Amino acid sequence: MVQKNKTCQWCIIENEFKPEDNYVNETLFALGNGYLGVRGNFEEGYDGPKGTGLEGTYINGFYDSEVIKYGEIAYGYAEKSQTMLNVTDGKVIKLYIEDEEFSMLSGEILAYERSLDFKEGILKRNIIWKSPKGKEVRISVERLVSFNRKHIVAIQYEVTPINFSGSIKIVSALDGEVTNLTTENDPRVGAGFKGRVLSVEDKRLANTSGALVQRTKNTRFLLACAMQHQLKADSYSIDCIEDELKVSVAFNIQAEKNKSIILDKYIAYTTSKDFKEEEVLVKAESEVSAAMLCGFEKLKEEQKEFLHEFWYRTDIQIEGDDSLQQGIRFNMFQLLQSAGRDGKTNIAAKGLTGEGYEGHYFWDTEIYILPFFLYTNPEISRKLLEYRYNILPKARDRARVMSHKKGALYAWRTIDGEECSAYYPAGTAQYHINADIAFAVKRYMEATEDRDFLINFGAEILVETARLFADLGEFIESKDNKFCINEVTGPDEYSALVNNNCYTNLLARENLSYAYEVVLWLRDNEKEYYDKLVEKLELKEEEMELWKKAASNMYIPYNEKLKIHPQDDSFLDRKPWDFANTPKENYPLLMHYHPLVIYRHQVCKQADLVLAEVLLSHKFSLEQKKMDYDFYEKLTTHDSSLSTCIFSIAACEIGYYDKAYEYFINTARMDLDNTHGNSKDGIHAANMAGTWMCLVNGFGGVKIYNDKLSIAPYIPDHWEKYSFRISYRNRLIKISVDKKGTSYKLLEGDSITILEREKEILLS
Amino acid sequence: MVQKNKTCQWCIIENEFKPEDNYVNETLFALGNGYLGVRGNFEEGYDGPKGTGLEGTYINGFYDSEVIKYGEIAYGYAEKSQTMLNVTDGKVIKLYIEDEEFSMLSGEILAYERSLDFKEGILKRNIIWKSPKGKEVRISVERLVSFNRKHIVAIQYEVTPINFSGSIKIVSALDGEVTNLTTENDPRVGAGFKGRVLSVEDKRLANTSGALVQRTKNTRFLLACAMQHQLKADSYSIDCIEDELKVSVAFNIQAEKNKSIILDKYIAYTTSKDFKEEEVLVKAESEVSAAMLCGFEKLKEEQKEFLHEFWYRTDIQIEGDDSLQQGIRFNMFQLLQSAGRDGKTNIAAKGLTGEGYEGHYFWDTEIYILPFFLYTNPEISRKLLEYRYNILPKARDRARVMSHKKGALYAWRTIDGEECSAYYPAGTAQYHINADIAFAVKRYMEATEDRDFLINFGAEILVETARLFADLGEFIESKDNKFCINEVTGPDEYSALVNNNCYTNLLARENLSYAYEVVLWLRDNEKEYYDKLVEKLELKEEEMELWKKAASNMYIPYNEKLKIHPQDDSFLDRKPWDFANTPKENYPLLMHYHPLVIYRHQVCKQADLVLAEVLLSHKFSLEQKKMDYDFYEKLTTHDSSLSTCIFSIAACEIGYYDKAYEYFINTARMDLDNTHGNSKDGIHAANMAGTWMCLVNGFGGVKIYNDKLSIAPYIPDHWEKYSFRISYRNRLIKISVDKKGTSYKLLEGDSITILEREKEILLS
Repeated sequence: MVQKNKTCQWCIIENEFKPEDNYVNETLFALGNGYLGVRGNFEEGYDGPKGTGLEGTYINGFYDSEVIKYGEIAYGYAEKSQTMLNVTDGKVIKLYIEDEEFSMLSGEILAYERSLDFKEGILKRNIIWKSPKGKEVRISVERLVSFNRKHIVAIQYEVTPINFSGSIKIVSALDGEVTNLTTENDPRVGAGFKGRVLSVEDKRLANTSGALVQRTKNTRFLLACAMQHQLKADSYSIDCIEDELKVSVAFNIQAEKNKSIILDKYIAYTTSKDFKEEEVLVKAESEVSAAMLCGFEKLKEEQKEFLHEFWYRTDIQIEGDDSLQQGIRFNMFQLLQSAGRDGKTNIAAKGLTGEGYEGHYFWDTEIYILPFFLYTNPEISRKLLEYRYNILPKARDRARVMSHKKGALYAWRTIDGEECSAYYPAGTAQYHINADIAFAVKRYMEATEDRDFLINFGAEILVETARLFADLGEFIESKDNKFCINEVTGPDEYSALVNNNCYTNLLARENLSYAYEVVLWLRDNEKEYYDKLVEKLELKEEEMELWKKAASNMYIPYNEKLKIHPQDDSFLDRKPWDFANTPKENYPLLMHYHPLVIYRHQVCKQADLVLAEVLLSHKFSLEQKKMDYDFYEKLTTHDSSLSTCIFSIAACEIGYYDKAYEYFINTARMDLDNTHGNSKDGIHAANMAGTWMCLVNGFGGVKIYNDKLSIAPYIPDHWEKYSFRISYRNRLIKISVDKKGTSYKLLEGDSITILEREKEILLS
Repeated sequence: MVQKNKTCQWCIIENEFKPEDNYVNETLFALGNGYLGVRGNFEEGYDGPKGTGLEGTYINGFYDSEVIKYGEIAYGYAEKSQTMLNVTDGKVIKLYIEDEEFSMLSGEILAYERSLDFKEGILKRNIIWKSPKGKEVRISVERLVSFNRKHIVAIQYEVTPINFSGSIKIVSALDGEVTNLTTENDPRVGAGFKGRVLSVEDKRLANTSGALVQRTKNTRFLLACAMQHQLKADSYSIDCIEDELKVSVAFNIQAEKNKSIILDKYIAYTTSKDFKEEEVLVKAESEVSAAMLCGFEKLKEEQKEFLHEFWYRTDIQIEGDDSLQQGIRFNMFQLLQSAGRDGKTNIAAKGLTGEGYEGHYFWDTEIYILPFFLYTNPEISRKLLEYRYNILPKARDRARVMSHKKGALYAWRTIDGEECSAYYPAGTAQYHINADIAFAVKRYMEATEDRDFLINFGAEILVETARLFADLGEFIESKDNKFCINEVTGPDEYSALVNNNCYTNLLARENLSYAYEVVLWLRDNEKEYYDKLVEKLELKEEEMELWKKAASNMYIPYNEKLKIHPQDDSFLDRKPWDFANTPKENYPLLMHYHPLVIYRHQVCKQADLVLAEVLLSHKFSLEQKKMDYDFYEKLTTHDSSLSTCIFSIAACEIGYYDKAYEYFINTARMDLDNTHGNSKDGIHAANMAGTWMCLVNGFGGVKIYNDKLSIAPYIPDHWEKYSFRISYRNRLIKISVDKKGTSYKLLEGDSITILEREKEILLS
């Protein structure tokens, strides 16, 4: 864990290196730009105890795949896995002082600091190392993964002899001998691959330039990694070394005491997912040359400018709690590092910081992460939704496999759109993902009024998801002929394969009615696009009438006696979990109880109905939300990292401010404090965005309904003041809340009327 | 398929060899004795087109095991597979006429007949073969798997030159290069093993004797296969040939025209499951020597005597339908061939005739097969129940894994007692297996009054299964505080993970109340055994009271409006399957629809509630049974081979005699006519026993309740007469039914009063 004694509002800092913290800190100090991700591994490698570290470099959406083995197969199971690959290790820089190799675990570390600055986007490491034979050197390393140049990683490696002059060797390499983590028993990580799946197809090595071209085993994707160097030193020679899976350049330097040697290393990654096969290597080489031409200082400046703009639109300030301030900025920074911005990639559950969940995209994006981008950097949220549009064909195929005659069924977990969930009760059965995506389209339109998106992408997503629900559900006689959705799993994975999951039905209703509304709007306002859509999708009038009928007759489980919404048809027929006799070490329950045991009880992994009431807050009375909250809170383990943020927002709304604050604290520093114990496998991206929602939608009380941005701020006792920024319909609004009240500043855009609680406020 | 033009009442006959029928006929002509099974493969092997045959020799309960791979793992999943192994091929006899090797697919078959006689227990093959070069030979082969000597297979191989004199070579071998079938996409077969799992540890070869000792890869079981020969020929020499995985004896014979050469081959199989490691080979050698000493003719006589006794107790005669008569005798013969009789093994779903379902034991034994043995050969049914007693420790372990503090949970599918089901919704979730076993104990006691079994085995099974249900269920407030059993799967696997499966609750009620009754009886009548039981199982008074309370408050789903028992809590909330739009080729549904699609609909793979009403017939009114039958019949696909027999019995009781007869026909010749299309993978053992139940419990109307054997016979129009035999409380009763009435003959035992419908009849 990052040391707390050095809490910094704009950075994280580590002052002491401990192998036992290494694995987690590799995640926390990871760099990324939404395309490339590099764990906070050391350039020289790490040879600590087994299981205390994982070298990892990842490219968003770059995966290999193999046939999924099932103990017992059934029709329609996901056929192939997709695993985001650990790619060529480009950051390798090994240092030799005379005949002694530098390592954090040999000799003596006389001084150490590692930091990651959110304004600069630079990972820094400063060490004074005393070798076993007594030679002292100062080592300063700076690393960046460029936000402006998505293919580029750059490292500045500086070595200064403190108590000697003599030979220093720096060996910089591209190492193609990389594998993914394999695990046998944690469903939250995934099986990985046995052995190496990247074969080396080509190598280049000349002077101080080198490149490796590798190919994936089954998907046959091509990957190039190129490097170039600039060395500032007086006297040195160069050796080029080619191994089977590695190219290295060795710089043999005659170093002088107190005189710095500086090696700048530029690395570029390109793949056949972005370029034609024959261009992949060429592009890597041209990208790396351009970066070198630009130079390390200029790259740092670009990075700073990019982040300046980002924070201008995004920053949240909390006065009165430095550790929270640090947590929330860290989270926003990591979200930026995680988000694919090309319409072809999305946000993996763990960003690009680790191998948990195999680099898959889930509903996390639409329900948890998208709001953050939508209300701060809406162009990124559009790209995320374009990804969903781009995988529509695969979602249509999947719907056919699942016997749906019409519509599209999005994969529960995927990289390229194909269903990769190998456990359908907590996978394919989560049909709510369709409604989640439709809901995100709706939110996006509310906040942006982006006509171009709607006619080119959004409408089609809405039609295809609505169709699926229309085919999935049925007007069931025994349920008063209401429209029922059977045999699905809701967000709470501690119940599975239920009828009428309340969340699913509520969101499906939104999906159906919004699709209806949008198609009507197109017909009346965009006849040309409407006609194209009707033709392309063979959309029929009756279908739309069915959506309308299904939406208005949607079955919503409700228990009159308890005055609560049961999570599903049979939730109240189960016995409550025996929390009193469940030892602490038995959490998360999924790691200690068979699914049958969990499913048999009233127990929730995460917010389910409570989430629906947060998303559709205006559709429920405060009294109802309170009843439901009180009922579900005591049954919820929060074993999922998606839970506490939602409970915080719900608690805020009801006025349970202490609870709201407590949940918020748990949320805001989840990875920094490794509270779930598995941050080593990567950040919890959805939870990070949940932190933002807690503050903006929870304490800030921000909602959009009836075409109005509405705010209802509350300030926790512990804080002096807080402020946040909202992008809304081409405006950028800064909202500041202190003990006296709320103030607004329109930073960009035309004047606009918003609501503070019931009161209209004109911002100009 | 066996040709129908040669219907024989006591045998099956094939008159023409067709490669396209080979695979199925290998199953139909399989021999076994409950310990050993040999598919009806030819001694010389088979080189027909790929996928038209499978060499197979199996030993009941002899398996290898490997770690089950899951796409996504969860806590408590079955860890290791168990697959009944295809063992050393001991029957190999190759024939060479001069330089030409005999094969059914070369030269010309001038005459051919293969037959299996149920009174003799001998598989015979008679061929006149013309070699490609024009040499004609008559080949007669007889094979038996001894019922009296469980380790022994014997073959008599006779060759007669018809149109030449010259050299004939017969090569007899033990071939250790054997593997199991592997399949990727049929859950009804199982994955099998990649490659060979039996390694050769030792070989013996001297004169005309040989042996192979092999070991399984993971379970490390030892297996010996020994052979000896007797050749009747005038002039010959012998070669011993040792290969890496095979030992062979070649007989080089100077044959004379029209003079028969006869080779008798004796083979014995022994394993470390029956003997100490060091004795395994010794025992195989002594067993094979004893068999040779006995001689082929004597072995045949023994076989005949054994079968004489079997048919005396078991035979069913139907006058007026030869093909039915053949079917029902074939089925009973195959059941005898399948049943483990040592208390350590049981009856695999496919007997010992194929690799379907990996040689696993299921509830099929207790609910379908046990009644056949119980009412004909009760000592075999006792051995089958002793097997369940012997695996109680593993069932206890499994209960703990499934978080049950007390009791035992039997594995859904297993060989040695460990859960091997890799798909828990249609595996572990089928908790009804516990109640099925308890129900079998109850039926066994009713029919035998076997005090010794009850005190030594039965009571403990009853207590441990009752305890499990007591822990599993709960008095649920929303269900009127009735005792509910949630999140289980009933017999019908087209619904899964439901609450209050009616069958499960009904049978669990029997389990709880019978356990209560038996323990009270022990307390009052067998104090010594009662005290031992209480001590061993730490049985408490409160527990028993809970069983009683749970039984009397068991929740039984009932719909007042429809006047039917819903299969489970939510069965009526689903939409009925669209049978009208389901093409014929889409059956069985499980091979063409994702489980979610199936589970979402009202559709049954097999009898579920109807089965419960057959088993507990006296507890339901005729009117109720009719309502339920009418409701479920139209929703049932009979995709399971366990279905039609139950519908036949139920239809009989209600008076739907045409339906009853139609279902019976489908049942009685299921394998002979390969109506399910997968008899190649082995017989459908449970269905075979179902045939017996159709006749005895269906048409014969045999039931036992209120301590009385009750009979209510009906004779189908097509039949002149039928008769069957019942073993009941040390009596053997023959019941004959014709158009005029029913007659009884007490073949063994003291006089007894039985009921024919309401009327008491004294048999003496």
